[in-house]
Amino acid sequence: MEIRIVNGKTIKAAPKESLYKTLKDNGIYLVASCGGKGLCGKCRVRRLEGDARVESSGKLKKEEIDSNILLACMTFPESDMVIEIPEESKLVIGDKIAISKSKDIRNFLHSVEAGLEPAVRRVYLEITPPTIDDHASDLERLKLALSEKGLAGMRFPHGFLLGLASSLRTLNWKINLDYTEDLSAVAIVPADKIDRYGLAIDIGTTTVVVYLVNYSDGRLVDVGMTYNSQMRFGDDVITRIVHATEGGGLDELRTTVVNDINVILSPMMERHDINSNEIDSVVISGNTTMSQLFWGFDPSSIREEPYVPTLNSYPVWSAGNAGIKIHPQAPVYTVPCVGSYVGGDIVAGVLASRLHLNPEISLFMDIGTNGEIAVGNNEWLMTAACSAGPCFEGSGIRHGMRATEGAVESVKIDPVTFEPALGVIGDSVPTGICGSGMIDAISELFFSGVIDQRGKFMKDLKTDRIISGDEGPEYILYRGEIKDIVLTEVDIENVMRAKAAIYAGVSVLLKEVGLSLDIVDRIYIAGGFGNYLNVDKAIMIGMLPDLPKEKFSFIGNTSIAGAYLCLMSAKMRKEAEEIAGRMTYVELSVSRGFMDEYMSALFLPHTDMNLFPTVRDLYKKN
Amino acid sequence: MEIRIVNGKTIKAAPKESLYKTLKDNGIYLVASCGGKGLCGKCRVRRLEGDARVESSGKLKKEEIDSNILLACMTFPESDMVIEIPEESKLVIGDKIAISKSKDIRNFLHSVEAGLEPAVRRVYLEITPPTIDDHASDLERLKLALSEKGLAGMRFPHGFLLGLASSLRTLNWKINLDYTEDLSAVAIVPADKIDRYGLAIDIGTTTVVVYLVNYSDGRLVDVGMTYNSQMRFGDDVITRIVHATEGGGLDELRTTVVNDINVILSPMMERHDINSNEIDSVVISGNTTMSQLFWGFDPSSIREEPYVPTLNSYPVWSAGNAGIKIHPQAPVYTVPCVGSYVGGDIVAGVLASRLHLNPEISLFMDIGTNGEIAVGNNEWLMTAACSAGPCFEGSGIRHGMRATEGAVESVKIDPVTFEPALGVIGDSVPTGICGSGMIDAISELFFSGVIDQRGKFMKDLKTDRIISGDEGPEYILYRGEIKDIVLTEVDIENVMRAKAAIYAGVSVLLKEVGLSLDIVDRIYIAGGFGNYLNVDKAIMIGMLPDLPKEKFSFIGNTSIAGAYLCLMSAKMRKEAEEIAGRMTYVELSVSRGFMDEYMSALFLPHTDMNLFPTVRDLYKKN
Repeated sequence: MEIRIVNGKTIKAAPKESLYKTLKDNGIYLVASCGGKGLCGKCRVRRLEGDARVESSGKLKKEEIDSNILLACMTFPESDMVIEIPEESKLVIGDKIAISKSKDIRNFLHSVEAGLEPAVRRVYLEITPPTIDDHASDLERLKLALSEKGLAGMRFPHGFLLGLASSLRTLNWKINLDYTEDLSAVAIVPADKIDRYGLAIDIGTTTVVVYLVNYSDGRLVDVGMTYNSQMRFGDDVITRIVHATEGGGLDELRTTVVNDINVILSPMMERHDINSNEIDSVVISGNTTMSQLFWGFDPSSIREEPYVPTLNSYPVWSAGNAGIKIHPQAPVYTVPCVGSYVGGDIVAGVLASRLHLNPEISLFMDIGTNGEIAVGNNEWLMTAACSAGPCFEGSGIRHGMRATEGAVESVKIDPVTFEPALGVIGDSVPTGICGSGMIDAISELFFSGVIDQRGKFMKDLKTDRIISGDEGPEYILYRGEIKDIVLTEVDIENVMRAKAAIYAGVSVLLKEVGLSLDIVDRIYIAGGFGNYLNVDKAIMIGMLPDLPKEKFSFIGNTSIAGAYLCLMSAKMRKEAEEIAGRMTYVELSVSRGFMDEYMSALFLPHTDMNLFPTVRDLYKKN
Repeated sequence: MEIRIVNGKTIKAAPKESLYKTLKDNGIYLVASCGGKGLCGKCRVRRLEGDARVESSGKLKKEEIDSNILLACMTFPESDMVIEIPEESKLVIGDKIAISKSKDIRNFLHSVEAGLEPAVRRVYLEITPPTIDDHASDLERLKLALSEKGLAGMRFPHGFLLGLASSLRTLNWKINLDYTEDLSAVAIVPADKIDRYGLAIDIGTTTVVVYLVNYSDGRLVDVGMTYNSQMRFGDDVITRIVHATEGGGLDELRTTVVNDINVILSPMMERHDINSNEIDSVVISGNTTMSQLFWGFDPSSIREEPYVPTLNSYPVWSAGNAGIKIHPQAPVYTVPCVGSYVGGDIVAGVLASRLHLNPEISLFMDIGTNGEIAVGNNEWLMTAACSAGPCFEGSGIRHGMRATEGAVESVKIDPVTFEPALGVIGDSVPTGICGSGMIDAISELFFSGVIDQRGKFMKDLKTDRIISGDEGPEYILYRGEIKDIVLTEVDIENVMRAKAAIYAGVSVLLKEVGLSLDIVDRIYIAGGFGNYLNVDKAIMIGMLPDLPKEKFSFIGNTSIAGAYLCLMSAKMRKEAEEIAGRMTYVELSVSRGFMDEYMSALFLPHTDMNLFPTVRDLYKKN
């Protein structure tokens, strides 16, 4: 059987495989937040010709079914088919995301008072060549030269020594030796070589960011970013953990993300004329599941009570072990994790925020695909994961999408006509709604009286913007020629669950240390999401605590910033270890107070309006 | 084009490839001491049909050429061919060689006063399982249990940790942990497991021997042996070094010998119901070239002045690095080498002989494919390589072969009729002559007056046993139906060169320390060759020094015996390091005295008959 894709290639269909799987096996990836289980309703394709067995139509509407829309993951071809794949169903992987180069990153490095002490050091050696009367082996000669520099006891990995004989002879016995801080030989480099390159890598659940750094001076040479292609197997960490336990899934996840890194790297090296062997140091920062998957550790215990990772503190292994295509002996340092749901990205974030050194109490929030918070100062640190879920990334939202071109990112609703005014990224025709758009929309719907405190639509409002859909009422944000963009009651519920989890997490964490919110001096909002977030609106819906706006700081991707610091400085790596060691991890899912706090926060903005005086006052005014 | 082999398969001929290469690529290996360069004349095949371009007929005789014998390495098929491969041209690889199990090996171990201290140690650990209130990671738990046993600071290779989570849970948190003496984790083993397995491996130029040892008690579980399949690329180390420098040759040599080891291992493990993961310790012993090739190091500097190996003292790497199919984290200890032509096999041999602890002066001789000697006592040790060449293994001898079935191993010649009486291994029809047979034959030819002191045939002797061949006169040892077995003057020259090199080596080494032969208390003859050697005859031809017979000890394969000692005991590994460090390596090729000694020894038994009083007296009597 063959599947012909309109404006695309024709592929062979494997018998008994779903259309989703067949497309995937042929390198055509569809959005499938649920990992292809018929739940998210995102992997839609249109059948133009051919027969298929359809196991389920999931969340598809009758009109869609009538117009031959199918869920690819629930469709099993039974003859040759011709299909069309709508743009919004295509998973754009490997798509470069623009990121501004931080020119100030070296200033940042200097500001933390870290000297340049990268994980790989360099020593210049002049080795005595052998003669017929002095026939010690190459390695003995190298060891002698090292011990003269006070570097006795060096360890030599097998891969390092394989190139020794020819390197010594090619370089005429005058070499630079790169070695790790714990004395393991990494590479032999020509004596006149000054530049040294390393990588800081942030492995997010959604995106992978790579900094190529010249670590002889700390200069950021280039930045690359891509979506984490593990998204093929589901949007959130739980779906990926489930996939890892399925035959071959673990290896698939590991190679997928390692390949993403290599795909980013290759053009970077070409652009700057850097040989892969010249890159000989790496720092990886990611949440606990991403870290385990990167190193190929089965993450299943993370998901099962008592939620224990295999390891939090990673030994330094080699790039060859990891499969990153740079110098195979390059040490790879993994920013330490704290627990199953608070990982190295948060440790790197706290490190970059410097809150662990500050006597004032700060709150650190990373509202990315997951939702992690940390609170503390130079004396104590507490942390928790809120399991907010990836709804702010568009997952679990009917027309949810990431904050890329075509996403509705701001919404204003007229309190009289209930007509919306939309801000769309790229000023283009809207194709969906992103996290900040949802927060805006819900805040506006609430204040204009379209939804109540529980997020339910008011009945009998005079507007044709509210219609009745398959899952109950929904608000039409945009009337499109092909499809409308709506926000359903179920979507609103999902966002409310996420924001309630975040707020409840903060409350519980503070209560654990007997503090109230007003003691918090500073709130750091980290993560890509932070860049677009409207703090006022986030307070309105009760996601962020009602504190003076000047206390909030958006500090961007602190996972990569912290990884950069660790790449450049032994002091920073030591601080990262200290942060991970000092952090008290609170498992919210078993915390007695959490469920109460969560239930109370499942309102707009909260059952206790007094916690949100600004909102209360504004609401009263309306 | 196709090549059909009589009584064999039909293979495709690659255009422009020699018949030798084509056969090799199809898994049919011919004897080719020279590595397929048209020099040794051993890769003979008979053409029955078809055309071919013949670049050279090398040492083939006219009758052979007339009867369609070709050198496969010099023959390039130009049409379909039918060929016949004579038995003696077939390289029997993977053939198991019988070896007697040393039941006394444990007594030997006890005799050297070495406790059982294998390179891998075992500790029993009870690890506290995680609970919802105690959610430290698996690795933190393991570290805690280790530090309670005084084993803090353990290093964890990536491969080890990959199985941690499932092992801990499967074994219910009660485990045996195997780890190396320098604290690197190797394997997790069920708590009730007592047996522990390791391998002692002797990688000879000609044979590979593997001891499977239960190192919980030192018991020899099984022994396996095979020819070193690197013989496909030539008989001696020099030919293999040359092959290593040819495109892909190094990797080919490495994988070939590693595969030999795996091929020996696989049925052994099956026989004793041992899982590959249960074998977690290895000791390798081999000459310098074999050691470098095993680990994949380019050996070319061994062959080029100033003859320097890449390394003599090997770090401990893992079986996974080496490619041996046992526990991938198993540490592989390589017995240290001394110099380019005195390797770990000699260090292991001296270790096994114990001469390094004895106040008496001993001479250690390993007359295998190469020819290494060591002399010394508990105060000093000298060593040298004689470059005797592999003629005692049959290489470079017209009808030379190894000491296997069909080999003439002893010869008696009637001094009146010059008719020979032959002893043949396996009492079968003779197909060639092995090392001990050659020594016997030359000694007999000399004493019966067939050849003179220079090894040249006497003229005008009344016998039809001496005929005139292509390379001068030759003696017919055996008249065969198909072919005769002869010893040519060139063969005798080759043996004389080898024996002269060995004797000259011993002389020079003793002169270097200002000692004469009579000070030597004991002579250890090691190597497979030693088993068949007739000391009297070896003295007669001047290969061994003329000392009382009771001073000679045959100590067999001491390379494997020393490897076994190192596998079982830290004390023995330390002694091996000390021996390698103490040995003064004399490079005979640049020693001023060597060439004089060598020239003087190119006689039967020697130009100076007074050095061989026994032989002199016997000769006078005749």
